[in-house]
Amino acid sequence: MWLQREITLRPRPRGFHLVTGEIESGVPELRELRVGLAHVFILHTSASLTLNENASPDVRDDFEAWFDAAVPEDAPYWTHTIEGPDDMPAHIKASVLGPSLSLPVRDGRLALGTWQGIYLCEHRERGGPRSVVVTLMGED
Amino acid sequence: MWLQREITLRPRPRGFHLVTGEIESGVPELRELRVGLAHVFILHTSASLTLNENASPDVRDDFEAWFDAAVPEDAPYWTHTIEGPDDMPAHIKASVLGPSLSLPVRDGRLALGTWQGIYLCEHRERGGPRSVVVTLMGED
Amino acid sequence: MWLQREITLRPRPRGFHLVTGEIESGVPELRELRVGLAHVFILHTSASLTLNENASPDVRDDFEAWFDAAVPEDAPYWTHTIEGPDDMPAHIKASVLGPSLSLPVRDGRLALGTWQGIYLCEHRERGGPRSVVVTLMGED
Repeated sequence: MWLQREITLRPRPRGFHLVTGEIESGVPELRELRVGLAHVFILHTSASLTLNENASPDVRDDFEAWFDAAVPEDAPYWTHTIEGPDDMPAHIKASVLGPSLSLPVRDGRLALGTWQGIYLCEHRERGGPRSVVVTLMGED
Repeated sequence: MWLQREITLRPRPRGFHLVTGEIESGVPELRELRVGLAHVFILHTSASLTLNENASPDVRDDFEAWFDAAVPEDAPYWTHTIEGPDDMPAHIKASVLGPSLSLPVRDGRLALGTWQGIYLCEHRERGGPRSVVVTLMGED
Repeated sequence: MWLQREITLRPRPRGFHLVTGEIESGVPELRELRVGLAHVFILHTSASLTLNENASPDVRDDFEAWFDAAVPEDAPYWTHTIEGPDDMPAHIKASVLGPSLSLPVRDGRLALGTWQGIYLCEHRERGGPRSVVVTLMGED
């Protein structure tokens, strides 16, 4: 099976957001895949995807705090400032976390660890809706 | 060929550890794959996988030093502190390095560069055994 | 379709460089792939690949500025210094950005967002030519 589908994630405020359910329900054909991979790819350069703890909202708040400290908006070395103070840090954060996730699939479900959830990492103040391409591959 | 297998990596102390051989020997079917990919995925949110220099142990020590400096345990912004001072930094480090590696396979072997080895990145003081799912795909 | 090809990228100075066209022209078979993935993998531990803004050269300059600030060459904790002051920071940067990209393919083209381009991230002063393995997979 090779299947590809574009999903639009609704707009979120700047921060880290759990979207596992929204991704899964966007590709119902996942249920037919016995063994394979799901590749989730974001079509943007100022938002990213990662996998992390799916239970405590304060973990996601601490992600925002660390990334804001590690990639400061007021650093003296930024030259690409024309799109606002959150733009260039958003590009850096997007590359540090990466644009895609490759996830194992087993018996029609994402084979994630107990505590793993998919985060949409929204690095802009107003990023708007975000598009992801999900590619399912494997044996049905 | 689509093949998926879960491997348990023995417990390691906090730090960066070479596990290329342990991963390879966990999927002996790798030898049958002529051209394809091996996807290695860790089922945890406080440990991660990366690829780096496979020769000098001091490189791996310096990884630990840099990550400890970049993600300080005593930062004032942590709110998720209930699981100990190494927990929230472990989550951040895990996402910065990422939960998976996709590696080319050629003629029954991982097609890595001369100096590339797989690191298990153990970010907790006592992480215990770590589970990875290896998915082999391609033509045999 | 499973196809694997090694491409040599010409030497670049330290910094971040757009190589989307060079990668695409190295695998002309991409045109035959209807739906699938392109996996691009760098065979080195002191250079890396990422996806980011493909229009403004100052974005790529700011990548260099941020990474140089985040991974300082003169940090007191480096012990692996035998290969020069740019070596150990290069290893760290390579793992933070990662050795590979998995990109969706649709109708014979990389299905990237409007602003997404492939960066070769050269972390050494004189890295020389860099080898990447491109694996195409999917349905033709």
